[in-house]
Order: sequence, then structure tokens, then C-alpha cells
Amino acid sequence: MKILITNDDGYRAPGIQALYRALSRDHQVILAAPDREKSAVGHGITLNHPLKYERVALNCGGSGYAVSGTPADCVKLALFDLFQAAPPDLIISGINAGSNTGININYSGTVGAAREGVLNGITAIAVSIQYGDVMDFDGTAAYVASVVDTACNISLPPGVFLNINMPCIPIKETLGVKVTRQADNNLAVKFDRRTNPRGRTYFWYDELRPVRPEDHTDNDALLANYISITPIQCDMTAYQVIADLENAGF
Amino acid sequence: MKILITNDDGYRAPGIQALYRALSRDHQVILAAPDREKSAVGHGITLNHPLKYERVALNCGGSGYAVSGTPADCVKLALFDLFQAAPPDLIISGINAGSNTGININYSGTVGAAREGVLNGITAIAVSIQYGDVMDFDGTAAYVASVVDTACNISLPPGVFLNINMPCIPIKETLGVKVTRQADNNLAVKFDRRTNPRGRTYFWYDELRPVRPEDHTDNDALLANYISITPIQCDMTAYQVIADLENAGF
Repeated sequence: MKILITNDDGYRAPGIQALYRALSRDHQVILAAPDREKSAVGHGITLNHPLKYERVALNCGGSGYAVSGTPADCVKLALFDLFQAAPPDLIISGINAGSNTGININYSGTVGAAREGVLNGITAIAVSIQYGDVMDFDGTAAYVASVVDTACNISLPPGVFLNINMPCIPIKETLGVKVTRQADNNLAVKFDRRTNPRGRTYFWYDELRPVRPEDHTDNDALLANYISITPIQCDMTAYQVIADLENAGF
Repeated sequence: MKILITNDDGYRAPGIQALYRALSRDHQVILAAPDREKSAVGHGITLNHPLKYERVALNCGGSGYAVSGTPADCVKLALFDLFQAAPPDLIISGINAGSNTGININYSGTVGAAREGVLNGITAIAVSIQYGDVMDFDGTAAYVASVVDTACNISLPPGVFLNINMPCIPIKETLGVKVTRQADNNLAVKFDRRTNPRGRTYFWYDELRPVRPEDHTDNDALLANYISITPIQCDMTAYQVIADLENAGF
């Protein structure tokens, strides 16, 4: 297959390099990723600055393209300029250093790139590892390589892609796979308030408060040392509310 | 009511100032918006830089808070620091200069801020006007002021908020309201390729190709000169696919 890989940690990140190595054994892999870290940019794109890209050598050997924009920009620009003859068969975004589960899916550049892929009608997968001392990028990349055929053959409905998250343990110690729903109780709301040497207040996003994962969710799977696979859809319409709104006088 | 307003065009933009004026007549309005334009940043947040805010005078009279981050940052930081005693009753994001409909909802900072509001358990509304010569900010603000009570009383399910879009005509010429679904056929994929004076290629996002809106969608309502109200949900899980994935061997 012809596979486009991207991420939000930038093209030098170990996760995407592991993916490049593992997938290159059996596939034609084109890497087009941000030229620097672009974490937590969600599905943002760059409207008010021009974009550029350049060919870069990869630490793992081979070469790729470093793009001046966001992960979603990388996908759009690669499809426009690098895949003029034919689109890729698959887009994989990752491997992100840090899980993208529950509410954090909203903020994730990794997931934004996968969503951009499926909006373009291309099978797409986002892959992340829970942040921790043991982030098994090579094991995860091998796992991803082992499931790309399955992922492409199940023909998901239009606008649906897979969000894969790994617990931060060696892949061989994971207990299996759970197909999960997105958790909705891990909202981060805390800031660390500080004062600079000139007396001015500023704020850093603080750590997540620990939450007890709900059953059958992505976060619950990770806590139990399972690989989590969540099908994510692009359509955000709350269809069940349409009649209520009409009846309410809108 | 106590209403937090924000946007992605920055606190000086005419849309948010119109909203401030119209809502202040009957409500306590707190404005906390980006200190500069932050269009198309989606639901991105600022993890790798500290955030700060300052009190600023508004052109329309009164004062507000200019925040150094994204629209979603504005909501999070305002809830953390400006609403310590009690959260607002309602969060309104807008009025954006440019519609936020169909696939563009993914890229919208305006919508990202409303989503952040409802994730925090607060009723939230995103409001935008189709880009054009006639963007009736005052008329739209008056319309929003007229529906805030209804919006707060219908008690939407958790995680659902309203995305309101106006056609670019005077509000008095609109034909009514349509409750719509999110269109899925207005993907922008074109770039304008240019060369700088030093021979380097760069790319600008180009205009949307015109698409024929599908029935019952947000874009269809705007084209027919109706106000579009789309209920948007935060849960992105594609539940209908979970069994298929389990059967496929995941």
C-alpha cells in the first residue's frame, strides 16, 4: 500500500520514525509532518500565513517532508501536492507520545490529522501511547503494521476512522484489544497561577486530575492494560435533539 | 443571567462587540476573548506557552478581558479565574465574521469555544454570519438576545450545544429558522501555489469550491436565506461500528 504518515510531535519525534521504519518493510511510506512540535492544536489549520514544506533526511534513514503548519495542514497539503497522481491508500497519524482519549480527543493534533484524512475519503488511523516511562514505540509500530490490512478491509462507513491508544507498558505485556467508546469525564480544568519577575500573573495548564474511568471507555481500557480502539465519526450532529428544538420554537 | 462571551476574531471584532451591547441590556456580560485574531484554530489549546490576560476597554463601552490564547483557552481560563465563585449561566461564542457550517465546524475556533463551554457543563451557543457585504451583526445580536431564554430552558442533553449561522442578509429579510444537520460536502482542498522572490514555493489556502448544499443541512438553510440552528454533540464515538470492529478481529 501507499501510506501517508504524519503526527503532531514533529517529523523528528521517535513515534513517527518508529512508524516509518515498521511500515516501510512492506509498504511505500510518505512522511509529511510538522517541522516542529504542534501539540494540542486540535483540527486547526493555517489560514493567515502561507505554508511551505521541504524535503528532510530522517534519523531512521530515508527522507520525508517537513511542513510549516499543523497536522491537518500536513494532510491537506500532502494530498494536494505530493499525491497529485493518486491519493494514498491509508493515512496514519502518530505515534503520539501521550494518549489521546476521552475529552482530549478534541485538543489532539494527532486525531485532527486522522480526521482530515477520512474527510478526504481516505482510511485513517490515529495512534498514541499513554505518557509514561515505558512508551514502546517500536512495539506499537509493529502492532500497527500488523493491523493495517484489517483496518483497510473492514470498510468503515464514510467519515469514520480509528483512534488507537496503547497503555505505557511494553506491547508484549498488554492483555489484548478492547473496542471502546470515548470517555467523557477527563476534562482538564486546572491552571497553575504564577507571577513573573515583573509582578505580572500568568497561567500554565496544570496536570489532569485523576479520574476513575467509566466502563467500556478508552481510558478504562488503558488503565486495565488493554489496547484501546475507538471508532470516531466526523458527523457531530445531535440528531436526537432536532425534533425537541423544533418543538421548542426554534 | 450571567453570560460569558468569547470569539475567535479577537476582542476588538465587531461581532463580539455587537453581542456585548445587545446582551448587556438584560444580563451581566463578561467578555473574555483572544487578544488577536485566532481564526481556524479549532478546539486547540495552549500547552507549551503560559497564558495571560489583561483587562481592556471595549470600543462599545464597558470593559472585558483580552487573553493571550485560543478561544478554548479563553473559556477554560475565564472559568478558572474569573468565575471562581460560580460559573456563568451561559457561554456564547461569536458573532463570527464567516459561517461555521458543515466540515468547517472542525476548523472553527468559534465552535471550539462553545464546545469547551458545554464540556464544562454550561449551556453554550456558537453564532456566526456567512461572509459577505451585508453582515448584520446588530440584527444577529438582537436575535441571539431574543433566544437565550429559550436556549437555556430546553435543557439539552449533556454535551450538546447550539451552532447558529446567519445568512449574509439583513436579519429582517431572513425567512425564518431551520433546525439543521451538519453538511458533509464542503471540504476545502485547494491551495494557491506561489513562488517567493528567492524562488521558494509556498502555498495559501484557496477559496472553497462552490458545492450544492444537501437538503436539511446548515449550508442549505443559509443558501435559502434561513437562519440555521444545528445541535452539535461532543461525543464522537461511532457506536454503530463497535460490533463490526469486534467481529473484524480487533
